[in-house]
Amino acid sequence: MSLLTDLYQLTMAHAYFDHGMNDIAVFELNVRKFPPRRRFLLAAGLEQVLEYLEQLRFNVDDLEFLQGLGAFPQAFLDHLATLRFTGSVHAMPEGTPFFENEPLLRVTAPIAEAQLVESRLLNIVHFQTLIASKAVRCVIAARGKQLVDFGMRRAHEASAALFAARAAYIAGFDGTATVQAGRRFEIPLSGTMAHSFVEAHDREEEAFWHFIESRPESSTLLIDTYDTQRAAHRVVALAHELERRGAGRGIHAVRIDSGDLAAETRAVRGIFNRAGYRSIQILLSGGLDEYSIDELVRDGVPMDGFGVGTSLDVSDDAPALDMAYKLQEYAGKPRRKRSPGKVTWPGVKQVFRERGACGEIVGDRIALVSEQDQGEPLLTEVMRAGRRVPEYPGLKQIRKYCAHEWQALPPPLRELGDTQGLESFPVRISDGLQALAAFMDATGD
Amino acid sequence: MSLLTDLYQLTMAHAYFDHGMNDIAVFELNVRKFPPRRRFLLAAGLEQVLEYLEQLRFNVDDLEFLQGLGAFPQAFLDHLATLRFTGSVHAMPEGTPFFENEPLLRVTAPIAEAQLVESRLLNIVHFQTLIASKAVRCVIAARGKQLVDFGMRRAHEASAALFAARAAYIAGFDGTATVQAGRRFEIPLSGTMAHSFVEAHDREEEAFWHFIESRPESSTLLIDTYDTQRAAHRVVALAHELERRGAGRGIHAVRIDSGDLAAETRAVRGIFNRAGYRSIQILLSGGLDEYSIDELVRDGVPMDGFGVGTSLDVSDDAPALDMAYKLQEYAGKPRRKRSPGKVTWPGVKQVFRERGACGEIVGDRIALVSEQDQGEPLLTEVMRAGRRVPEYPGLKQIRKYCAHEWQALPPPLRELGDTQGLESFPVRISDGLQALAAFMDATGD
Repeated sequence: MSLLTDLYQLTMAHAYFDHGMNDIAVFELNVRKFPPRRRFLLAAGLEQVLEYLEQLRFNVDDLEFLQGLGAFPQAFLDHLATLRFTGSVHAMPEGTPFFENEPLLRVTAPIAEAQLVESRLLNIVHFQTLIASKAVRCVIAARGKQLVDFGMRRAHEASAALFAARAAYIAGFDGTATVQAGRRFEIPLSGTMAHSFVEAHDREEEAFWHFIESRPESSTLLIDTYDTQRAAHRVVALAHELERRGAGRGIHAVRIDSGDLAAETRAVRGIFNRAGYRSIQILLSGGLDEYSIDELVRDGVPMDGFGVGTSLDVSDDAPALDMAYKLQEYAGKPRRKRSPGKVTWPGVKQVFRERGACGEIVGDRIALVSEQDQGEPLLTEVMRAGRRVPEYPGLKQIRKYCAHEWQALPPPLRELGDTQGLESFPVRISDGLQALAAFMDATGD
Repeated sequence: MSLLTDLYQLTMAHAYFDHGMNDIAVFELNVRKFPPRRRFLLAAGLEQVLEYLEQLRFNVDDLEFLQGLGAFPQAFLDHLATLRFTGSVHAMPEGTPFFENEPLLRVTAPIAEAQLVESRLLNIVHFQTLIASKAVRCVIAARGKQLVDFGMRRAHEASAALFAARAAYIAGFDGTATVQAGRRFEIPLSGTMAHSFVEAHDREEEAFWHFIESRPESSTLLIDTYDTQRAAHRVVALAHELERRGAGRGIHAVRIDSGDLAAETRAVRGIFNRAGYRSIQILLSGGLDEYSIDELVRDGVPMDGFGVGTSLDVSDDAPALDMAYKLQEYAGKPRRKRSPGKVTWPGVKQVFRERGACGEIVGDRIALVSEQDQGEPLLTEVMRAGRRVPEYPGLKQIRKYCAHEWQALPPPLRELGDTQGLESFPVRISDGLQALAAFMDATGD
């Protein structure tokens, strides 16, 4: 996968090689401007970045392909053959809430190495950060109700489906329907049934019965194929029959995927409760997002959980972030881009987070690493000389940390609506950083 | 990758297996409702679907994982071990424009096989169709100017980056910056330089010079890192110097990535032309989409091409399609879902396309396959008994076909703006299909 990069990374590496430019470069990754309604984002994808950096190498087939392009001389290709990532990485832990212009990851390496990895590194971190940051909004809205990722079919191809499940789990989702994601990341798997299963049977009750027989311990029946409330009565009749036969719990839940979800849920809950089946859960799905979930929960609709698909897996209201990986320092000298609208804070930076007496997050300060500052530094070393610093946390631990951190944010940041008029989270720029930027403005190219 | 599926596909396959349900099912894939401003969509992804179906099998590790879930009996797992896709596929050729509710792909197979492949099949076709349909809008806007996919970093993870390049190429893009996509699909590769390359040098002209030295045949220089017009003068000085040394063409193009692109392009074009360098091309990038491209082209801005990133690779204004894969027939009986808002046309269908005297597309009719109808049937058999019908076209051929087909659409469909008030493309429902739907409504569950 080392050729999963933009061509210009190789072209630039070639020019660096030709001119003996192999001093140490420092690149930082940040999000310049947040999409509407995002009050904070969650850092995610670091583990895959570290795997990628450790495995970076150009094999014989890669080099043969590059040779065939006719743009690279043999000396450079020979150099690529032995190239490994030998640098260090500092990063915020996955699951950390962060804000505009805060570096969440920093790469320090000989410039060709640091440059070459840009495209894939962004490709990894951008996507998981995007999805984790969308998912946490559903978690906020669901207020403890169960949340399952249903989005594989609408995720953007195979790897997006896998990593959406991972990112959503970090952000607090309870599980995924995507089997391969459950397997690869040990995320709890959850599944129901499809309309086609019901339609393949001549009668709905036959479909339900077949399903329960094959899955006696925990069936979730889809009840909106024809008429939701009539189906709920059929579920009650089935539950009676199962009881009569002493056939165990059988029906764990029902799923409603269309119609007026609030009204249908209330009606179905009533049907179940009146028949004595308070334990049968109701799961909702069908075009849900954080706003519809929020409304259902606030209205006291008696559902037990949600399956979220498209809106989660493509982050439908904001399918991309303004994320960039920028050169901050080369050969010990700070660097700064001044393209209109894309000005960045120069130099190698750290983010210091201040907390109140109860651990609540009260403000951040972006400073030069060389400055002394108060507060907790968010970027810590996770890779040194191309090797991971041992003990990367497990996914459950990351998930727990994430829940703790976003819940420590000021309450207005844990709202879902428009941010207009909202007092923004205090992110201050240190005196040292402001002085450096002013100095570079005065003396720059 | 056979476990890249939703858990319920396996659960349902298990229930079908337990109850000996293995009659032939017919599923169709369509898009129910188009996103705003999409007047037609382009079918894409079929080749990958066929590869997936041919390769579908559960290996020992897959089965061991499923066994570990504790939800599937050994008899079913043994059945999965030998399961292959043995059905047939009918589909529109990739690159075909299609409309709401038209089936673009049909699977005919024993029900468990046809059901099992749903999630991945949608995952493949949804994404490439989404991107091809976005890309063709850029192609319409660019009116022959060069278009290159720059979106890898913001694509949703690895496979999205690869298949976005493929889908965009089908739709008429000229190339991609993503090396692995160029390699895998033989798409022309294109690359420039990044701001970091300029910043890593103490002086901009030194960066330009280094780049040209390493790439004497076709350099594209990025000129907006500090001051675009000043950089353009530096490019002229470099071009003079290259000429003086007799060092060949050297500077192929410049790229402008920020600022007022129209004004900067006009200024830079003027600088180059006055210096006698009419041949140096100007490539634009930086948050472009079909609307900004359309405006630049209509205003006569003298650029030569565009790099399109985020808006293409995530289809930013419509990052998902309302695409579904629905059971149409089981055991010879038509099936129909009647969930509110999700009613489908029942039965096994074909799309007949009518053309005018010059080959222009004048209307479609959705009919039952059993009906005789005029026009050209769009769905043809591409897989039989689990094997591809030979001679799948190459990507260049698909691209050529696609260009021919969308250009045969009525001119109002080749506009980019809001569709409100636009007379929609005539897609008629055949008498036979309407009669079947009415019959099923009258007699259904």
